[in-house]
Amino acid sequence: MKLRASITSITGYVPGRQPAGEGWIKLNTNESPAVSPRVLAAIRDAVDEGVRLYPDPLCTHLRERLAARHGVDPRQVIVGNGSDDVLNLLVRVTAGPGDRLVAATPSYSLYPVLAAIQGCEMVAIPLGGDFSLPVRQLAAARGAATFVASPNNPAGTHYGEDELRWLAERTNCLVIDEAYVEFADADRMALVHEFDNVCVTRSFSKAFGLAGLRIGYAVGPTELIDALYTVKDSYNVSRLAQAAGVAALDDLAWAEAHWAAIRQRREAFAAALRGQLGLHVYPSQANFVLVDTAPWDAAALQAALEARRILVRRFTDDARIANALRISIGSQAEVQAVTDALRAEVAALGHVDPSAARSRA
Amino acid sequence: MKLRASITSITGYVPGRQPAGEGWIKLNTNESPAVSPRVLAAIRDAVDEGVRLYPDPLCTHLRERLAARHGVDPRQVIVGNGSDDVLNLLVRVTAGPGDRLVAATPSYSLYPVLAAIQGCEMVAIPLGGDFSLPVRQLAAARGAATFVASPNNPAGTHYGEDELRWLAERTNCLVIDEAYVEFADADRMALVHEFDNVCVTRSFSKAFGLAGLRIGYAVGPTELIDALYTVKDSYNVSRLAQAAGVAALDDLAWAEAHWAAIRQRREAFAAALRGQLGLHVYPSQANFVLVDTAPWDAAALQAALEARRILVRRFTDDARIANALRISIGSQAEVQAVTDALRAEVAALGHVDPSAARSRA
Repeated sequence: MKLRASITSITGYVPGRQPAGEGWIKLNTNESPAVSPRVLAAIRDAVDEGVRLYPDPLCTHLRERLAARHGVDPRQVIVGNGSDDVLNLLVRVTAGPGDRLVAATPSYSLYPVLAAIQGCEMVAIPLGGDFSLPVRQLAAARGAATFVASPNNPAGTHYGEDELRWLAERTNCLVIDEAYVEFADADRMALVHEFDNVCVTRSFSKAFGLAGLRIGYAVGPTELIDALYTVKDSYNVSRLAQAAGVAALDDLAWAEAHWAAIRQRREAFAAALRGQLGLHVYPSQANFVLVDTAPWDAAALQAALEARRILVRRFTDDARIANALRISIGSQAEVQAVTDALRAEVAALGHVDPSAARSRA
Repeated sequence: MKLRASITSITGYVPGRQPAGEGWIKLNTNESPAVSPRVLAAIRDAVDEGVRLYPDPLCTHLRERLAARHGVDPRQVIVGNGSDDVLNLLVRVTAGPGDRLVAATPSYSLYPVLAAIQGCEMVAIPLGGDFSLPVRQLAAARGAATFVASPNNPAGTHYGEDELRWLAERTNCLVIDEAYVEFADADRMALVHEFDNVCVTRSFSKAFGLAGLRIGYAVGPTELIDALYTVKDSYNVSRLAQAAGVAALDDLAWAEAHWAAIRQRREAFAAALRGQLGLHVYPSQANFVLVDTAPWDAAALQAALEARRILVRRFTDDARIANALRISIGSQAEVQAVTDALRAEVAALGHVDPSAARSRA
């Protein structure tokens, strides 16, 4: 049996670890520490004989609610099986073999995987100093689609409306991946209203604590959204996911209070790591922080945390962040636990020469 | 904004109607009339704080259970967001631009849509007399992948192990789509054990009454399954779908009794349509029957049934079945209702010249 060589040579996306068993403090995949009890009750209520029927292929109810929330026409909204589903569809409708996809790096590591699967070229432009967005180079790369995650992953850097506007004016299709935007000071949805080549993607995974249900969506020009509908699986979003999405929007006050709490906890956590441990914490507008652990070795600290059943994530592909740990903002108790654990480990390691630590990374 | 011309020119897959509102007898999309109460309870139990966490990307538990059920290694199983997800992945790993996908026609109308989205050529070989499988022509078309639905849709024709074996020996990758096989006398899973280029796809939608949850899977050679894992969305199957799948396998006795009841009801329904109304009902091994309504006009009958809030499906692309209705085997009451409705409508229409009816189709 011959499979496509372009596929068998791909290294697939490697998701963060999902440990089996109890007792883990799981701060490695940016999940929410909580979910609205009213949303849980609504999902439970939706589990009835109706599960024997296919879900609504258009997600009509949820789509209308999202359109109202963002002040757009329902035809400008598509719901996916998580925002990864929507990102995959966006690649498929914009770029084929011979086309280029453009993104900054480091960013969400799924983008190059999607490009490889689709057989198009990935142009990855290194972020500038302080992880600034290299807008001139991004525009010059002339992508069939250009992906900007904002807040970006893994540092939580949020990009300004003006620089994204400048980029939108100079690219074919600008996808702003706002998977973390509910934890930021502002979003860039205004650009969807302003441009007919800008699409914003969102997720219910982090903002609403529904990663297990798989709900994401895109808001964009109808021409683009229509094309995404052509390509998507008809029944891509389950009945329970659709019900959960509507219930989450019904309980927006809970979510807004949750977002505010996470923002406040993030700032307190970053202040503690900076003030008490002298670590460099990158400014973040997401529900995680990236911590450069120099002079201590990030890999050693990650292993030491794991021995305490605390999971955090490390990315080794980019030298600038290879000695850093990305830590999700969990519950207050979880954040306290990881703070205490880091303090204890750093004390046990004692002082290390920063240059030696870096060379080990 | 420039989108891919190959995408914007596609007519997407058109799913059967999912009506809003109550009171419909819905026999148009082959859903199950029932779901196990124990499975419903298990799904409800799975709705807890855990929904805030991503699902297991490997569906480990469900995968192991399916492997045990089919006597294969877990590495030979992949679970998808419905079997449509798996079919899409199969296209992506086997066929690119310049390659051919091969299937018989009429069959599941998603295959040509997936080929068009992927930008590969679709070779559709007309079924022979009595909807027999044109194995010589299918083999001669030399597809990167060859799709055979068995039982086939829309007539419910089931193909023999020997003819599928003959085809497996002469094609690169043979996908046997067994979405309806639980309602047949036998399955063809033995060919997966026998060949390293045969893949069988299955669905929980009809067999277990879980269309709303989205669970399908493929069983095949590890080389192929590994490639599907590379291409799939990491978190393609929700936590609740994984829990539902395991619960359904825990309650297999319920499902087996359900399949037997549907088979028996199908034969009684077909006998009634043949004996009482003189209609031609194609032999079916699925949870639906295709009924040629000559001398009466199928479109008129479909409209008359819809006026009675009974939905059935009609396919107009193939002249041989354009004057036929595909009717799902629902509950006993639903099957009785559609039988009574057809009897009343046929009586109201009176005798019609068969050739006139056919020309209107």
